[in-house]
Amino acid sequence: MRGKGEVTFIGVVEDAGELARVRIFPEFCVGLQSLDRFSHIIFLYWFHLRDTKEERNVRQVIPRRHLGAPRLGVFSSRSPSRPNPIGLCVTKLVKLQDCTLQVRGLDASKGSPIVDIKPYIPRADSIPDARVPEWTSSGPST
Amino acid sequence: MRGKGEVTFIGVVEDAGELARVRIFPEFCVGLQSLDRFSHIIFLYWFHLRDTKEERNVRQVIPRRHLGAPRLGVFSSRSPSRPNPIGLCVTKLVKLQDCTLQVRGLDASKGSPIVDIKPYIPRADSIPDARVPEWTSSGPST
Repeated sequence: MRGKGEVTFIGVVEDAGELARVRIFPEFCVGLQSLDRFSHIIFLYWFHLRDTKEERNVRQVIPRRHLGAPRLGVFSSRSPSRPNPIGLCVTKLVKLQDCTLQVRGLDASKGSPIVDIKPYIPRADSIPDARVPEWTSSGPST
Repeated sequence: MRGKGEVTFIGVVEDAGELARVRIFPEFCVGLQSLDRFSHIIFLYWFHLRDTKEERNVRQVIPRRHLGAPRLGVFSSRSPSRPNPIGLCVTKLVKLQDCTLQVRGLDASKGSPIVDIKPYIPRADSIPDARVPEWTSSGPST
């Protein structure tokens, strides 16, 4: 099925950095109920600074933040320049108050729109011994 | 920043089930280069059967496949009925040949469009001891 889909942004990164603040828009806020039963949550966010035709046409990258990384397909990387500018980040939930989340480890930029939030469930999401190429061990985690 | 974003589907689930087959469209295929250096990959896919106004307006769910799950906010669940119908699934890469991937553990349906593929990197993605509520331990993993 070829085609396109539309996403509606549900919130925004108000403060980036190691401790980040995310505000969820009021009409989506009830969707956060009980989220604080989870210690970690997954963000899908929009690489809004890369949402251009050029960046979305990128098919191969050299992950420059990783020493020794070779040229590889964009789907073998976590590059923000990719056909669909969606970032994925596992974060620690520090605080949930009203419609605002404080989280640790979010690698989004200030102003990045939020596309989705999902609870992190180790049974499904944690593969401690997954095999990766050597270049992933240097530099930032993604 | 309120607004919307557009996603272009990059492939499709041709066969669902425990061992699934995913075909990536030719114009995105070079993006798969070196993906087989990773043992596990993350799929973002489109819940195409839930892409309706009603399903996208869901804000609270009771995860019925999980015994004893309470009503909770949609972002505290992995429900396919959610504001943006994007599913996330960590899978084992069994085989990559040309533009076709065989993977184990993909919970998408036959015909689900693929939105993105990302390499699974334990440094960033694996939190074995993340805390979850009791109801997540019964039924399927998500």
